[in-house]
Amino acid sequence: MVRVSVVGAHGRMGGNVVKAVEGAKDMELSVTVDAGDGLDAITPENTDVAVDFTVPSATLDNVLSLVSHGVSVVVGTTGWTDDKLDQVREAVGKHPGTSVFIAPNFAISAVLADYFSTIAAKYFESAEVIEMHHPNKVDAPSGTAIHTAKGIAEARREAGLGSIPDDTKSDGGSRGQLVDGVHVHAVRLRGLNAHEEVLFGNAGEQLVIRADSFDRSSFMPGVLLAVRKLSSGKYQGLTVGLNNFLDL
Amino acid sequence: MVRVSVVGAHGRMGGNVVKAVEGAKDMELSVTVDAGDGLDAITPENTDVAVDFTVPSATLDNVLSLVSHGVSVVVGTTGWTDDKLDQVREAVGKHPGTSVFIAPNFAISAVLADYFSTIAAKYFESAEVIEMHHPNKVDAPSGTAIHTAKGIAEARREAGLGSIPDDTKSDGGSRGQLVDGVHVHAVRLRGLNAHEEVLFGNAGEQLVIRADSFDRSSFMPGVLLAVRKLSSGKYQGLTVGLNNFLDL
Amino acid sequence: MVRVSVVGAHGRMGGNVVKAVEGAKDMELSVTVDAGDGLDAITPENTDVAVDFTVPSATLDNVLSLVSHGVSVVVGTTGWTDDKLDQVREAVGKHPGTSVFIAPNFAISAVLADYFSTIAAKYFESAEVIEMHHPNKVDAPSGTAIHTAKGIAEARREAGLGSIPDDTKSDGGSRGQLVDGVHVHAVRLRGLNAHEEVLFGNAGEQLVIRADSFDRSSFMPGVLLAVRKLSSGKYQGLTVGLNNFLDL
Amino acid sequence: MVRVSVVGAHGRMGGNVVKAVEGAKDMELSVTVDAGDGLDAITPENTDVAVDFTVPSATLDNVLSLVSHGVSVVVGTTGWTDDKLDQVREAVGKHPGTSVFIAPNFAISAVLADYFSTIAAKYFESAEVIEMHHPNKVDAPSGTAIHTAKGIAEARREAGLGSIPDDTKSDGGSRGQLVDGVHVHAVRLRGLNAHEEVLFGNAGEQLVIRADSFDRSSFMPGVLLAVRKLSSGKYQGLTVGLNNFLDL
Repeated sequence: MVRVSVVGAHGRMGGNVVKAVEGAKDMELSVTVDAGDGLDAITPENTDVAVDFTVPSATLDNVLSLVSHGVSVVVGTTGWTDDKLDQVREAVGKHPGTSVFIAPNFAISAVLADYFSTIAAKYFESAEVIEMHHPNKVDAPSGTAIHTAKGIAEARREAGLGSIPDDTKSDGGSRGQLVDGVHVHAVRLRGLNAHEEVLFGNAGEQLVIRADSFDRSSFMPGVLLAVRKLSSGKYQGLTVGLNNFLDL
Repeated sequence: MVRVSVVGAHGRMGGNVVKAVEGAKDMELSVTVDAGDGLDAITPENTDVAVDFTVPSATLDNVLSLVSHGVSVVVGTTGWTDDKLDQVREAVGKHPGTSVFIAPNFAISAVLADYFSTIAAKYFESAEVIEMHHPNKVDAPSGTAIHTAKGIAEARREAGLGSIPDDTKSDGGSRGQLVDGVHVHAVRLRGLNAHEEVLFGNAGEQLVIRADSFDRSSFMPGVLLAVRKLSSGKYQGLTVGLNNFLDL
Repeated sequence: MVRVSVVGAHGRMGGNVVKAVEGAKDMELSVTVDAGDGLDAITPENTDVAVDFTVPSATLDNVLSLVSHGVSVVVGTTGWTDDKLDQVREAVGKHPGTSVFIAPNFAISAVLADYFSTIAAKYFESAEVIEMHHPNKVDAPSGTAIHTAKGIAEARREAGLGSIPDDTKSDGGSRGQLVDGVHVHAVRLRGLNAHEEVLFGNAGEQLVIRADSFDRSSFMPGVLLAVRKLSSGKYQGLTVGLNNFLDL
Repeated sequence: MVRVSVVGAHGRMGGNVVKAVEGAKDMELSVTVDAGDGLDAITPENTDVAVDFTVPSATLDNVLSLVSHGVSVVVGTTGWTDDKLDQVREAVGKHPGTSVFIAPNFAISAVLADYFSTIAAKYFESAEVIEMHHPNKVDAPSGTAIHTAKGIAEARREAGLGSIPDDTKSDGGSRGQLVDGVHVHAVRLRGLNAHEEVLFGNAGEQLVIRADSFDRSSFMPGVLLAVRKLSSGKYQGLTVGLNNFLDL
C-alpha cells in the first residue's frame, strides 16, 4: 500500500485527491493538512508520497519543506517559473531518495493532445490553437495552450517549415495572440470547464485534435499515476510533465 | 425560362454562376460580360435578371447602370456601405419594375446559422463566435462573423440580458475582438474555405451552431433562389440578405 | 412566491430540483416526498406546483393523484405513451384550474437544437442525427434523437423533399438505425453525459447543430421555467415539450 | 529528376496525380496510360516510379506486370486482400531493385489520426469511431475506419484493457457496427468528402481526433512522398501504409 498525504486537502482539487486516494485499492490516505496547519505531521514514517494542491504563493515552500524532511511530492499547483524549478532541483539533489513531480495538467487527454500536436506539427502548413474555459478563469490563454503552441513552433523549426501562411491585413484583434508564431485563441463560455482544440491544415485536408476536461475528476487518474510512479523509487530528482509517465 | 445575364463571368464566382445557370432547368444563360466589356449588351429585352459578381470598386456603378436600363440585379459582390445601399434604393425607386437583391453570403448554411444565433442568443448566459477561413483572406473577422455577433448582441439587449460573463484579467490578445460586446475569433488555416462556429453556454450546457462552406458550389443554390425570387416580380425595391428569401 | 413540492426528492434529478427551488428567489420549497411516502401531504393549500422526477412505472399514478387533488404538476420522468398522455388530458379536463407539463428534455440547448433542426431540414439534401451519452444508458437511441429525426422527416415531407441520398450497398450495421427515413447513430462514451449532433448537407456546404448537456444542472433552468409558467395560471390542460414555453 | 509514369491517368485520382507530378520541381512526367492502353510503354528506361490509380479488378495485374518489367510502383487503388498482397511480395522478391508501395489512404491527416488512435487507445476506458463520407460511396464503413478500429482494439488488448463499457439493452441498430469490439458508425452526407472522427473517453474527460479530407488534392502530398521514397532506392520489397514513410 502506498501511503499518501494530501496538502491542501480542503481545497476543491485537494478534496478530490482525498477521495481518489481513498478509492484506490493500492493506496491508503495518511495525513491531510490545509492552510495554517504546518507540514510537520507529514514524515517519511507515515508518508510515501505527498500531494500538493495549494496556491502558487505557498507551493514552493511546501515542496522545499517536504523534501528537506525526506518526503517525495506530487505537485498539481500552478505558477512555477524556471527559477522556482531550479530551487526544487537543488533541494531534491541534496536529499537522495526523494523525488518531485510537477505537472501543469494532469488530464491524460490534454497531455496526449499536447504530445500529438508536436508530432503532427511537422506535416502541416498551418496550425492554430483554440482553448475554451469557464468564464471565471482570470488568465488567458491557458498555460496548456501556450505550451502546445510552443511545442508546435519548435517542431516546425526542427522540420524546417517556415512561417505559417496568413495574408490578413487588418483584424481588429480577432486573430488572437501570437505565441512563438502560432495564433492562440481563448474562448470563455459558461458551461465549459477546460478544453483545447488544435487545428492543422494542408491543401485539401485538416487534422483536429481536441481535449475536453469536463470536470476535476478528469485529473485524478493522472494524479494517482504520478503517485505510483514516485513511490516506485524509479524516478530520481525533478520530473516535469505527465508525458514522462506515459509510455509515449 | 428565366433569362439570366452574368456580370463578371470570367471571375471564379461568376464562372460558377454561368455553370449553375446553364445547369438549371428553368433558366437560360443570356449575356455574359466581364471587366472592360461595358454593360450595354444587357437589356430588358434579353435579360430578366442580371447577376453581378465583380469587385467592390465596380459593383455600385454596375448596379446603377443596369437598374437605369430597367434590369433587375442579384449582387454577390461585397463591400457595400449604408451610403451605397441608399444610392441603390433611390435608383430602384425611380425605375418601377426593377428590383435589386444584395447578399453578403449566399450559403444557406451560413444564413441559417446566423438566423438561429439570433434566436438562441436570448436563452444563454454566454456566446462567442469563431470564424475559420483559408489563409489568403485579407480581412478578419469575416463580414458574416461580424453580422452574427451584432445579431447576438441585439437579441441579448432585447431579452434584457446583461454583459457576457468574463473574469479575464490579462489575455495578451487571445480573447479576440469585441464586436458589440461579443468576442469574435478568426482562424486562418490552409485547407479550409469559409466556416463559422457560434458557441452558446449556460451552466451545464452548450449549444454549438456551425456552418461549413467547403467550396464555391455552396453559394449557387442561394444565387439561383435569388434569381427566381426577383424574376417572380413579387419583390420590389432593394432586398438585403438571403434570409428574406427563405421561409423563416 | 411560488410554493413548489417535489416528488422523488431523494433521486438524483429530484435532489437537483430541491436545490434549484431553494436557490430561486421567487420560489419556496414546500413538501418533499419520495418512494413509499404517499402523496397526501401535497395539497393545493401548501403547493402551487408539484415537480415529479420519479420512474416510468410510478409517474402516471402520481400525476393522476395530484391532479385529482387539484395540484398542477411539472413532470420530468420519461416513459410516456400516447395512451398515458390521453389519461392525463382527461384527468386535467375534469379538474379545472389544474395543468400538467411533461417534457422529454428540459435542457434548453437540446430543445433549441431540436427546433432548429425542423427549420433547417427543409433546405438540405442530407440530414443525419448522432447522439452521444454515457455508457450506463440502457436504451439507444435517445428519445430526443428519435424526436429530432421524426421532426426532420416531417419537415422534409412538407417541403416535398424526396428520400435522403445514400448509395450504400453494404454496411454491416455501421449506417445506424433508420428512424422515419433518417439515419440515427448512438455513441456511448465514458466521460460524456447527454449530447446530440445534427448534420445537414448540400453540395459544398454543411450545417451542424450540436447540444451538449454536461450534467444535470443543465435541466434546472428548464424545470424552473416550467414551474413559473404553470403557476402563472395562463396554461390550461396538458402541455408537452419545453419548446411551448420558449418564445419560438 | 524523378521520372514518373501514371497508370489510370484519365481517372479523377490519376488526373490529379498527373497535375501534381507536373507541379513538383523534383519530378517529371513520363508516360501516361489508361484503360485499354497496355503497360508496355512504361519501362525502366523511361520511368523511375509508376503510380497506379485504377480499379480493384485491374490493379493486381498492373502491379505484377510493371514489377516483372523492373518498374517500381506506388499504388493508390483499393481492394487489396492478404492473398493479393502475397502475390505482390513474391513478384517483388523475384525482381531485385523493384519495390512496391500500397496505401489505403494517402491523406496525411488520416494516417496521423489512425496512428495517434493506436497510442491514445491504451489510456482510455471508451473508444468509438465515426466516419463521414459523401452519399455516393457504396461501401460502409470505410476501410480507414475499420483499420482504425482494429488498431484501437489491438492496443487495448496489449494494454490489458477489458471490453468497452456499454449497458445498452436495445438499440435498433443505432449503436453501429462492432469491429473487433469497437463500435463504428458511418455517416453519409452531401457536401462531405472523406472524414473520420475518433472519440476516446475516461471519467470526466474526452479526447477527439478528427481527420478531414475535403477533396482529392489532400492525397497528393502523400503520393509524391511515396514516389520520392521509392525512387530513393532505400525501400525494398512491399511496403503497406503511408505511416511507414512518416517519421513516426
